[in-house]
Amino acid sequence: MTPNTDSIWFTEMCKEGGSAFSLQIREKLHEEKTAFQHIEIYSTTHFGNLMVIDGFVMLTALDNFLYHEMMSHPALFTHPDPKRVVIIGGGDCGTLREVLRHPGVRQVTQIDIDERVTRLSETYFPELCESNDDPRAELLFIDGIKWMQQAEAASIDVIIVDSTDPIGPGEVLFSEEFYRACHDALRPDGLIVQQSESPLLHRALLKRIRHDMVSAGFAGTRTLQFPQPVYPGGWWSATMAMSLSAWPEPRYAEMEKIAGMRYFNRAIFDASLALPAFMTEE
Amino acid sequence: MTPNTDSIWFTEMCKEGGSAFSLQIREKLHEEKTAFQHIEIYSTTHFGNLMVIDGFVMLTALDNFLYHEMMSHPALFTHPDPKRVVIIGGGDCGTLREVLRHPGVRQVTQIDIDERVTRLSETYFPELCESNDDPRAELLFIDGIKWMQQAEAASIDVIIVDSTDPIGPGEVLFSEEFYRACHDALRPDGLIVQQSESPLLHRALLKRIRHDMVSAGFAGTRTLQFPQPVYPGGWWSATMAMSLSAWPEPRYAEMEKIAGMRYFNRAIFDASLALPAFMTEE
Repeated sequence: MTPNTDSIWFTEMCKEGGSAFSLQIREKLHEEKTAFQHIEIYSTTHFGNLMVIDGFVMLTALDNFLYHEMMSHPALFTHPDPKRVVIIGGGDCGTLREVLRHPGVRQVTQIDIDERVTRLSETYFPELCESNDDPRAELLFIDGIKWMQQAEAASIDVIIVDSTDPIGPGEVLFSEEFYRACHDALRPDGLIVQQSESPLLHRALLKRIRHDMVSAGFAGTRTLQFPQPVYPGGWWSATMAMSLSAWPEPRYAEMEKIAGMRYFNRAIFDASLALPAFMTEE
Repeated sequence: MTPNTDSIWFTEMCKEGGSAFSLQIREKLHEEKTAFQHIEIYSTTHFGNLMVIDGFVMLTALDNFLYHEMMSHPALFTHPDPKRVVIIGGGDCGTLREVLRHPGVRQVTQIDIDERVTRLSETYFPELCESNDDPRAELLFIDGIKWMQQAEAASIDVIIVDSTDPIGPGEVLFSEEFYRACHDALRPDGLIVQQSESPLLHRALLKRIRHDMVSAGFAGTRTLQFPQPVYPGGWWSATMAMSLSAWPEPRYAEMEKIAGMRYFNRAIFDASLALPAFMTEE
């Protein structure tokens, strides 16, 4: 597994997939142990800057637009009129930036337990933080689960769970108990979206998320799928859930009106909801 | 880049992407130098059997269905009535199997220069070769470019270029000259589809393919995109071209009638044609 001894590589193993993904490194820019996790920042040869948390690739400058756009726009355009948005996790601020593209959004609260993620993102991924000073943005660095459990009932339109993998600090964000707190904090027509790993390599987890969201009180779920080269298998998913028994008509006309997206558009919205044959059978 | 010294890994580097993909190996099942290339077969821990040619991952048992279904069904369901199909490359016979699912197809000629690929596929990927004895299938082991240059004019409905990467023996299959030979061998309503690498990492190549196909006489092109975890970046594309000035209505009703597909369905057909914002801008 050492293809070229003249070059330096960062490698993330995916144990449950028997696979690994590597990026060629120019230099390590930063490394620290925070109160919560181990963060590394590298400069790569082809993917721009890279953030790694506890050995897992979080994002690169080259391809994070895929993930951040798909974590925000499908949910926001499915909701009839999202004004109050909460992001759990998302400390790199890329999802926050996408949410703030929506002129109808009045307030976005981003709650990441680790302030260091945001401070390092400001330094090494400034383009993701360019909307942090938007007066509609509120950045909190506290426990997102506790915050959600204490949130005012029926006060939020869209909850985006932009978390790490379901191991370590992110694990509790993949639980029926957390979904129930989200369900109660959402308005009756509100919706939640959570990153839900690889459609190919994490099929059991995807099923469990859908099951747990319904057990927590949501009426139904929808799976979104999209490419994400730096995550295991290069193919990723998010799961949306809503309390209404019928999904509203997405606001297609407005999808064309918001500028700045590099992946998302109306056709991609529909495409992301198309389920492969093996998933519709499940 | 040695994540675990107790395990054995196969690694493919993508030089032009500064990335690498690795699969954990149980054992090497076979290795040989043929007259044309170097073939290795491995048993992996999670992806089933793996075929490697000249150091590049060709396919694994786990995820080849994505590629093979997308190389065949979108083109075959776009053509109004494909009867005569030619596959250039495709020696593992996975594309052949998919094409033969279509009852209207009367003859499929697969032309791979290296017979050893097919013989090894029969041994290590028998599921891909289960239709090789279909009376409609013809397997030739000769130079596909010469064959195409000598093919009867206007005699083929669909040409599928299921080739290796545009380096080594596959390089000549990515040329205007080859596309012109294909154009002349196709009936007026015929179409060609070719694997065209990663939408993210090989954008210049994708552009060149589209350009060269039009220079060779085709009226227009369409890009298909789909996940393919074992190829660089995990996100892959194919490019279709046709001589008619308007694309025919795809045969949607018949997409539901053919059994055995694990990825492709009607919704996935449409989804594969949805272009990301950054591609529509190009």
